[in-house]
Amino acid sequence: MALPKQSEDFPAWYQQVVRTAELAENSLARGTMVIRPYGYALWEAIQAGVDRRIKQTGHSNVYFPMLIPQSLLDKEADHVEGFAPEVAVVTHGGGQKLEEPLIVRPTSETIIWATYAKWIQSYRDLPLLLNQWANVVRWEMRTRLFLRTTEFLWQEGHTAHETSEEALKEARMILMDVYKAAVEEDFAIPVLTGRKSAAERFPGAIATFAIEALMRDGKALQSGTSHYLGQNFAKAYGVEFLGRDGGTHNPYATSWGVSTRLVGGLIMAHGDDRGLQLPPRLAPFQVVIVPIYRDAERTRVMEGVDKIAESLSGIRMKIDDREEHRPGYKFNEWELKGVPLRLEVGPRDLDGEVVTASRRDLPAKESKSTIALSELATEVPKLLEGIQASMFRSAQEFRDEHTFRPSSYGELSEILRDARGFVEAPWCSNPDCEAKVKDETKATIRVLPMDPEEPGANCIVCGNKADENAVWAQAY
Amino acid sequence: MALPKQSEDFPAWYQQVVRTAELAENSLARGTMVIRPYGYALWEAIQAGVDRRIKQTGHSNVYFPMLIPQSLLDKEADHVEGFAPEVAVVTHGGGQKLEEPLIVRPTSETIIWATYAKWIQSYRDLPLLLNQWANVVRWEMRTRLFLRTTEFLWQEGHTAHETSEEALKEARMILMDVYKAAVEEDFAIPVLTGRKSAAERFPGAIATFAIEALMRDGKALQSGTSHYLGQNFAKAYGVEFLGRDGGTHNPYATSWGVSTRLVGGLIMAHGDDRGLQLPPRLAPFQVVIVPIYRDAERTRVMEGVDKIAESLSGIRMKIDDREEHRPGYKFNEWELKGVPLRLEVGPRDLDGEVVTASRRDLPAKESKSTIALSELATEVPKLLEGIQASMFRSAQEFRDEHTFRPSSYGELSEILRDARGFVEAPWCSNPDCEAKVKDETKATIRVLPMDPEEPGANCIVCGNKADENAVWAQAY
Repeated sequence: MALPKQSEDFPAWYQQVVRTAELAENSLARGTMVIRPYGYALWEAIQAGVDRRIKQTGHSNVYFPMLIPQSLLDKEADHVEGFAPEVAVVTHGGGQKLEEPLIVRPTSETIIWATYAKWIQSYRDLPLLLNQWANVVRWEMRTRLFLRTTEFLWQEGHTAHETSEEALKEARMILMDVYKAAVEEDFAIPVLTGRKSAAERFPGAIATFAIEALMRDGKALQSGTSHYLGQNFAKAYGVEFLGRDGGTHNPYATSWGVSTRLVGGLIMAHGDDRGLQLPPRLAPFQVVIVPIYRDAERTRVMEGVDKIAESLSGIRMKIDDREEHRPGYKFNEWELKGVPLRLEVGPRDLDGEVVTASRRDLPAKESKSTIALSELATEVPKLLEGIQASMFRSAQEFRDEHTFRPSSYGELSEILRDARGFVEAPWCSNPDCEAKVKDETKATIRVLPMDPEEPGANCIVCGNKADENAVWAQAY
Repeated sequence: MALPKQSEDFPAWYQQVVRTAELAENSLARGTMVIRPYGYALWEAIQAGVDRRIKQTGHSNVYFPMLIPQSLLDKEADHVEGFAPEVAVVTHGGGQKLEEPLIVRPTSETIIWATYAKWIQSYRDLPLLLNQWANVVRWEMRTRLFLRTTEFLWQEGHTAHETSEEALKEARMILMDVYKAAVEEDFAIPVLTGRKSAAERFPGAIATFAIEALMRDGKALQSGTSHYLGQNFAKAYGVEFLGRDGGTHNPYATSWGVSTRLVGGLIMAHGDDRGLQLPPRLAPFQVVIVPIYRDAERTRVMEGVDKIAESLSGIRMKIDDREEHRPGYKFNEWELKGVPLRLEVGPRDLDGEVVTASRRDLPAKESKSTIALSELATEVPKLLEGIQASMFRSAQEFRDEHTFRPSSYGELSEILRDARGFVEAPWCSNPDCEAKVKDETKATIRVLPMDPEEPGANCIVCGNKADENAVWAQAY
């Protein structure tokens, strides 16, 4: 059960953490996974925060079918080119060969816009602000638990608007007020926001916006995307509305999603050599209470534990009263599982009317403190807030230390080849320069920042005049 | 937009309500549906109540893959016989023909028990109490929105136990404490509980328990099932554990589910000629506020409405301030959509410091009352509770009036042919008698009641000695 060190073999560390913390495991069909109770509880907490923000910003949830007639996919040229190679196809149903094969949704723009053609008649029907939580299937060549699986769970928002300005504003609002807010506030992970370059855009989009987070191995994880689709889908699926001007128009679209991939991001952004490290807002258990006693003291200690648990109402809590394991074993297990705060309760603690608290986010020797029983109800929530804030600060410091502004192409390519983090540098907007970096370092442009600083004078790759700064990194 | 009368054409009434209340509509792939925002909000409220009860009774949520290798289905003989004819099959993925076809789960016993073989080693791993919320696909011949669709949403619980007693207890507990409780308390629909006859059992089950609700056309709707699976799946998938006695044993299984079919039940159990009638605990909007004014009074009335809305915090509420529709139009629309309580606010109401309240569950002339503004915060929750309770009573009275205890086979078959409701009568347990009733009336045995009364002496069909009472009805 010993974990490989992060610094020595990050991929092996990741696999082991996912397995031993009982988050997920591979299943039988190629590239599929089972999400186990502890991993699914994390996903439920993530969903709750994202869903709340989606509703607060005026969206409603719906459900569109998973099976889509194949001919529907063919209507938007870029979209079919992007997704056709990845789809799973149902050819038989009810013991019969189907007249037309059905694809399992890889994303739902096609079925949704074919339906919007019925729902959108007038400007009064706009904006249409819908979202669904669903499973999707994409036939991926190389899969990894949570990060890239044949089937994954996600939410996909699909909106329709009268004007391009309004649709663009929506796409940006989702990125900032829903995705950035959720990942920074709930996950305690700072993110970069920005546009994608043409090469990295969603198939069928005019602009793709993304949040990018830095993992502890120096690679970036695209953690959420929001697309401005212009009128491409409206035209492909014949969606027209009667405008305020009495004329007929095609609405403007957005789509946006985050997925179970976020669980992978949480693991890799905060985890350490001891295992997971979960932010209190998402942790299935915010507090674990470990009773410590010899046989004769059991009753007294467990009575104390019950009282402590009572005083912590509203806190998600686990009492680990397993008799078959010693406290040290339990400490290791809950550290591996990333529980933010451990409370140890022994006879001496009870004598002193205190508990010993241990924070998961601090090194062992700084992690301990003593809390008076009478102050638990106020101190524990305060400690949890402190942990949430300090985890964010740590992640931000890590990112700052791993963000580089090289002055030469040689320096840039060396940093990127080593996957040392984000690299920000001026770019001329020429896809050839982008491709050259990718060929030579495997790194891609993660974002063109939303509020760019003035770019340096010259493209770091070719030396021609730069248009803007780009942020590169190797990525998952 | 006029609804057909329930009494004249119930199926047409149902279709129209689903369509005009904007709950759902047919989609493109055969038998699939789109669940629209109002319908999905209902499903979310249903889910919340069921999920809470599932967790309170000690279960955790998980997620198993939707795609299952075909060979896995073949391992449990009854199960494959029941489901093989209904499955959708993925034969191609990523542009290639698959080596082994994958089935889209019609239910997940197969993949789950194949996985439990890894998770269950010792009696310490038991009981294993897991549940998932998922979509499933069954190729149905005749489909109807919510009631029977090719794809539907559900939860499926799958548990493993040391002993048959414990598994049977679990299957019954789920039926009573989760399903019956949710449907009676949240839906305000009384249900019958009991065992299914052998002919109506889940493929692979030893006993199937069900809740059955009566719809307003006199037909029954099976609204949830809980199965005791014995050791069938454990044996088929090689699941063994080391027992307390040091020996090797197969665990005992249960599985249980409720689905989006419940939305159909809600519509048909409470709806009337004016449309939907939603119980306050599930209604997406518990209260709709309709301002009533002439132009000059608008500002004053809307200020009053805002204050009223403020005093109703915690109530799910809609303010219908659309300018393009008159109050009468709005009244009809929200009655169609089943909102439990309407508050009308006009200048005269504000003069008198009152609002006019109108209950959806009472006939128009009894439905109105006046509430002082100062008492809204206490009166509205009280009224909503009253509506919840009165809807349950109405449904129970309806069921009592439509439950029959005939004394002859002729009487029984006449009632069943007319689909007048539930019929309780003694049965000899012979499947031939059951089949005869079905052939002659289309009715099936819905349940063999959980706490049976002493049966009458003789089977109502054949006249031989009766074993127990059975409840028959035509069913969806």
